[in-house]
Amino acid sequence: MLSETPRTRHRRIKENGRTDPADLVAVLAAGLVAHLGIVIDGHPMVVPTVYGYDEDHIFLHGSVASRSLLLEKEVCVTVTVMDGLVLARSVFEHGVNYRSAMIYGAPRRVTEPAEILHGLRLLSEHSAPGQWDYVRQPSKKELAATRLLALPLTEASVKISDGFPSDGDGPDAALGLWAGRLPMVTTWGTPEADPLLAAGIEPPAHIAGRSGSNAHPAAPAVRIAGQETGTA
Amino acid sequence: MLSETPRTRHRRIKENGRTDPADLVAVLAAGLVAHLGIVIDGHPMVVPTVYGYDEDHIFLHGSVASRSLLLEKEVCVTVTVMDGLVLARSVFEHGVNYRSAMIYGAPRRVTEPAEILHGLRLLSEHSAPGQWDYVRQPSKKELAATRLLALPLTEASVKISDGFPSDGDGPDAALGLWAGRLPMVTTWGTPEADPLLAAGIEPPAHIAGRSGSNAHPAAPAVRIAGQETGTA
Repeated sequence: MLSETPRTRHRRIKENGRTDPADLVAVLAAGLVAHLGIVIDGHPMVVPTVYGYDEDHIFLHGSVASRSLLLEKEVCVTVTVMDGLVLARSVFEHGVNYRSAMIYGAPRRVTEPAEILHGLRLLSEHSAPGQWDYVRQPSKKELAATRLLALPLTEASVKISDGFPSDGDGPDAALGLWAGRLPMVTTWGTPEADPLLAAGIEPPAHIAGRSGSNAHPAAPAVRIAGQETGTA
Repeated sequence: MLSETPRTRHRRIKENGRTDPADLVAVLAAGLVAHLGIVIDGHPMVVPTVYGYDEDHIFLHGSVASRSLLLEKEVCVTVTVMDGLVLARSVFEHGVNYRSAMIYGAPRRVTEPAEILHGLRLLSEHSAPGQWDYVRQPSKKELAATRLLALPLTEASVKISDGFPSDGDGPDAALGLWAGRLPMVTTWGTPEADPLLAAGIEPPAHIAGRSGSNAHPAAPAVRIAGQETGTA
């Protein structure tokens, strides 16, 4: 089989036509875990990690000792939100509804102190909004032990699927089977206090207020190429 | 920076001591989406995909046209279940509770018809239990359009984190801030009928009965290295 170059690869992916920056940001807003793909000694490695983002970059962080945060290497960062199952009238037509973003590029190590704080704050606030200002912020020593990478959002593709089975008007419809979709929803639970917490300290509103809310909400601005969403 | 060989890499990962096969199978049982990492022309690519598994293999499938299912290439397949946030008294001590498995190796393309059906059935039943026997099974033509890969579960590592913040007995405890964990739970919703479905066809029990249940349940056999789970 002929190997393809990165450029033909990305062109092909872009033909899916879901590279509107608003779609990308909406997926990043909805997700919580990124899967960082790197090549080490010719071998692929995929590491789950939290992330932050702004309009121009996705930020990843880790220990300075982490091999998965080596510098100047091309990476692929994939963020996926699973929204449910598409249950068809045949095994072959089954599928998944999901939102996914793949971002390619060589991340830059952030070294300027103000940008490090900017990126770490975005990282922290994305998964735990309100905590940056509530808890103790990083010390000089902690900052020195943290590696922060910024990957530009310039080369990316987005796939969003939120449909029903496609065999409703095909011959399998005559089987008389139920078909549709089974949604899944990820919800924040009730805060559980650290067993070492002193008595009388209640969770602040920015934590307690998340209970019962959707952890992967659909952003109102999501534009779905080719089909409608259930929420837009 | 010295590049490491795959063997030193894997040795280092195994030192985490969470390579009990029962842990691996428990993570595969709890997860629904795998992130498949491959190297194409020297560049990493990470693709989300569903999977099935048995005691010896994880199975991945896709279109025969898919570049991410090229043969004989080494891959890394990572399955991650996010269980919640660890909210500490400082930004630096924040973290995530999760269950994750990374499987390395060169997948084998399954070509023997009985094994293809075995693998596809495992794939289908893992995310949609009961559907294989309820819906129409794959035709010869559909099987020919499907590529099935089997990756042995021989080289893998598992990471499971389910703890509380570690700063409860450190100097930051004096800050008097709330700390603990914020769990997240993914639940199956209510089946939504295909708009093209004929009237009077109700979802069968194996679909309707999932509503409200945890989509990433902790397997009773999960053994957590180093700490206790909330469920075991």
